[in-house]
Amino acid sequence: MASYSLLYFNGRGRAEIIRLLFTLKGQDFEDKRVTHETWPAEKPKTPFGQMPVLTIDGKVYTESLAIAKFLAKEFGFYGSTNQEEYEIDQITGMCNDLFTEMVREFFEQDKERKANMTQNLKEKTKPRFVGNLEKILSAKGKGYCIGETLSLGDLVLYDTLDGRVADDIIDKYPNVKAVMNNVRSNDRIKAYLAARVPTPM
Amino acid sequence: MASYSLLYFNGRGRAEIIRLLFTLKGQDFEDKRVTHETWPAEKPKTPFGQMPVLTIDGKVYTESLAIAKFLAKEFGFYGSTNQEEYEIDQITGMCNDLFTEMVREFFEQDKERKANMTQNLKEKTKPRFVGNLEKILSAKGKGYCIGETLSLGDLVLYDTLDGRVADDIIDKYPNVKAVMNNVRSNDRIKAYLAARVPTPM
Repeated sequence: MASYSLLYFNGRGRAEIIRLLFTLKGQDFEDKRVTHETWPAEKPKTPFGQMPVLTIDGKVYTESLAIAKFLAKEFGFYGSTNQEEYEIDQITGMCNDLFTEMVREFFEQDKERKANMTQNLKEKTKPRFVGNLEKILSAKGKGYCIGETLSLGDLVLYDTLDGRVADDIIDKYPNVKAVMNNVRSNDRIKAYLAARVPTPM
Repeated sequence: MASYSLLYFNGRGRAEIIRLLFTLKGQDFEDKRVTHETWPAEKPKTPFGQMPVLTIDGKVYTESLAIAKFLAKEFGFYGSTNQEEYEIDQITGMCNDLFTEMVREFFEQDKERKANMTQNLKEKTKPRFVGNLEKILSAKGKGYCIGETLSLGDLVLYDTLDGRVADDIIDKYPNVKAVMNNVRSNDRIKAYLAARVPTPM
C-alpha cells in the first residue's frame, strides 16, 4: 500500500482539498505542517520552494490542483468519462479563480485597496460566483457535481465556500447548499471537520 | 463529426491554448472573435458573462483550462496514464500561475505598482519559473513534457513563454528551448503561427 506524506503550512489554504480527498477515501497520510518559523529550513528541501508538496512512496508531487486531480482519479472521485472530468474541472476552475481573488485580498498591504477588494468580493464577486455555481448545479439537481456520489468537484466547492462565503449568500442557492450539506454529512468528512482546529485562510 | 465554435476576444489570452489544440489535431473550428465594441452585446448570451466559451454541437463549455483538458483528451494529447496526466497538469498549473501574474501586471492601473510588478516579473518570477520548468524537463530529457510526442503540456508551455518571456532567459535552459522548438516546428503549428496576426497578450 502506498505511503503518503503532505507538507504544508498549518492552514487550509491550497492543501485542504488534498486532506479532504484522503479523508473521504479513508486513506491514512502524514499531515506534516510547517510553521512560519520552520518554513525557511524546509523550503530548500522542496522542489520549487513552494507548498503543498505531496510525497507518495518517496516520489514528490507539486501543484495543488494537479495533485488533487491525480489523487481523485486514484481514489475514484473523478467521474468515469471525459465529460464528467470536464464538469469537475469546470467547477474546480471557477473555484480556483475565486480562491485566487481571495488570496490576493488576504495578502494586500495597501489599506484602501484592501478595503475596496474586500467590498468588491463581498458584494459582487462572491454572490455572482455562487449564483454561477447554482446555475450549473440546478441543471443537475441532485446535490452533487456529477452523478449521485461525492467527487472532487463537491469537495472543492465545499472547501472554497466553507467559512469564506457568508451563509446568507449560500442560503439563497438551494443546489449549492445541497452540495455543501452532502459533503458535510459524509461520516468521514463530518468526523474530520469536528476534529479540525480552525486556522486562518 | 462534431462541430466546434470558439468565442473569445481578438487576442491570445486564455483561448490560444484551445486554438493550438485544434491546430495540432488538424480539426476545423469556428474562431469567432469579438471586439471590445461587440462584447457588450455578446456577453449576456454567454453562460457567465465570460470568455472563452466553446460550443460543441450546441453544447456550451466554459473555463479555459477545463476546456483545454477536455479537448486534449478527446484528441489524444493528454498522455495515457494518470501519472502522465498529472505531469501535464503540473506544468499546466505552473504556467497558469505565471500567466495569472502576467495578467495582473498587464491590467494594473497604478503606475508605480505596475512598474514594480514589471520589474519583479522580469528579474525574479519569470527566470525562476523557467528554471523550475527546466528542472522538470531535464529529468525527462526528450524535449517533451511526456513521452516523445507533443501533448497539452508542451502547447501550454509554449504559449505561456512565446512572446512573454525574453529569449535571453529561455536560451539559458536547453530543455525548455527544446520543447519550444518541438512545438514551433510541428508542420500544422508552424503554418498556423506563420498566418497568425499578432495581438496584445
